[in-house]
Amino acid sequence: MSTAQDAEGTAEGGTNEASAWGEVAPEAARRLLVAAVGAFAERGYHATTTRDIAGRAGMSPAALYIHYKTKEELLHRISRIGHDKALRILETAADGDGTAAERLADAVVTFVRWHAAHHTTARVVQYELDALGEEHRAEIVELRRRSDAAVRRIINDGVRSGEFDVPDVPGTTLAVLSLCIDVARWFNVEGRRTPDEVGALYADLVLRMVTAAP
Amino acid sequence: MSTAQDAEGTAEGGTNEASAWGEVAPEAARRLLVAAVGAFAERGYHATTTRDIAGRAGMSPAALYIHYKTKEELLHRISRIGHDKALRILETAADGDGTAAERLADAVVTFVRWHAAHHTTARVVQYELDALGEEHRAEIVELRRRSDAAVRRIINDGVRSGEFDVPDVPGTTLAVLSLCIDVARWFNVEGRRTPDEVGALYADLVLRMVTAAP
Repeated sequence: MSTAQDAEGTAEGGTNEASAWGEVAPEAARRLLVAAVGAFAERGYHATTTRDIAGRAGMSPAALYIHYKTKEELLHRISRIGHDKALRILETAADGDGTAAERLADAVVTFVRWHAAHHTTARVVQYELDALGEEHRAEIVELRRRSDAAVRRIINDGVRSGEFDVPDVPGTTLAVLSLCIDVARWFNVEGRRTPDEVGALYADLVLRMVTAAP
Repeated sequence: MSTAQDAEGTAEGGTNEASAWGEVAPEAARRLLVAAVGAFAERGYHATTTRDIAGRAGMSPAALYIHYKTKEELLHRISRIGHDKALRILETAADGDGTAAERLADAVVTFVRWHAAHHTTARVVQYELDALGEEHRAEIVELRRRSDAAVRRIINDGVRSGEFDVPDVPGTTLAVLSLCIDVARWFNVEGRRTPDEVGALYADLVLRMVTAAP
C-alpha cells in the first residue's frame, strides 16, 4: 500500500515533510512546494510573499513564476496533495479485508501516522483552507466529503454486522477524524511518543468509542 | 459556576466572541482585544499590524498604544484570558461532587461548549502559540500543564475507584483534551449541531474511551 509506505519512517521534520512531495516534478517545482509549506507554517499564508518562498528555495521570483502563477496556486497544490493522500489512506482502509474493527483500526493508525510524520504540512492543509479561491475550495471540500464517507462506511458496516454500537454515526465519524487530524497540532518530534505509538493508542481509543460500554 | 455561564447562550459569532472579554476594562481595551481576535483569525498574527487592529476597533494607532504597547501584548492578553478560562472550566469540573464519570462528562461538556461558542478566539489561542514571546509562552505552557493535570486527576480517580479502565492515563488525557480543542477548528455556527449537542455527543464518546470494551 503506497500511502502507508509514504507515511513510514522516522518522524524527522525536514526529510519527512519533503518526502510527501515525491510525486511533484520537476525538482524545482517540488523544492518550491517544500519552501511554501515551511513559510506558510512559520508565518501564515497571508504574511508570506512569493518572494519569501522563492528565497527559501534558493530561487528567483521569476523562476517561481515558471512553476506557479500565484501564491494561491502553491497553497492549492499543497492542499490538493495532502487531501488526496488522506482520501487514499481512508479509502484503502475502508476497502480492505477484515472485520470492521480491523479496518477502522487500520484507518486510524495510518491516518494518525501521516498527521504525526507530516505535521507541518498537515497544519498548513488544515488551517489555511479559508485562503483558497472559491473553485479550489469547492474541490477540496468534495475530497473531505469523500474522506468522511470512507470512515462512515466502515462504522456503518460494523453497526450492521453487530460489531459496533454507535447511536450517532455521522457525529462519531466526525469525532474520529477530528481526533486524528488534531495530532498535527500537538505532535512534537521531540515528544515522548512516536507516530506509531500515537497510532496504536488512538486505534484502541477509537475502538472503545464505537463499542457499547459494558 | 461562572465559567459554565460564560459559555452559555447562542452560538452567534460576534456577540458570543465578544462576551468572552467581559472582564477586560476599560471598554476601549476590550474593543481592541475583540478587534485583534478578528484580525488574527482572518489574516494570521504575522500578517496583522497594530494599525489594522486599531482601524478595526474604530480607533487611532496612538489610542491603541495607550492600552497595549505591542502586538504581542495583545496576543498574550487573548491567550492568557483563553487559557485562564479553560483552566477554570477543567478545575471546576475536577473539584466537583459526583463520580469520576460525572465529573469527566461535566469537564467535556463545558470545555466543548466553550470551544464551540468561542471558536474564533479558541483558534487564535491554539494556533498562534509560537508567536508569543519566550516569557509569555512559558507562562501559557504552565497553564496548559495545569489544565492537563485537572483532567488527568479525574481519570486517575476513576481508575482508582474502579469506574474506569484506562491502560494509558497520560495518553488518554491528551486525547480527551485534543478532541475537545479541535471543536474550535471544525465548528460551524451554520452547521447542524449546537454547542450543547456536540458537548453531549462528546461526553458520551469520552466515557466510552475510559471504559473497557465488553
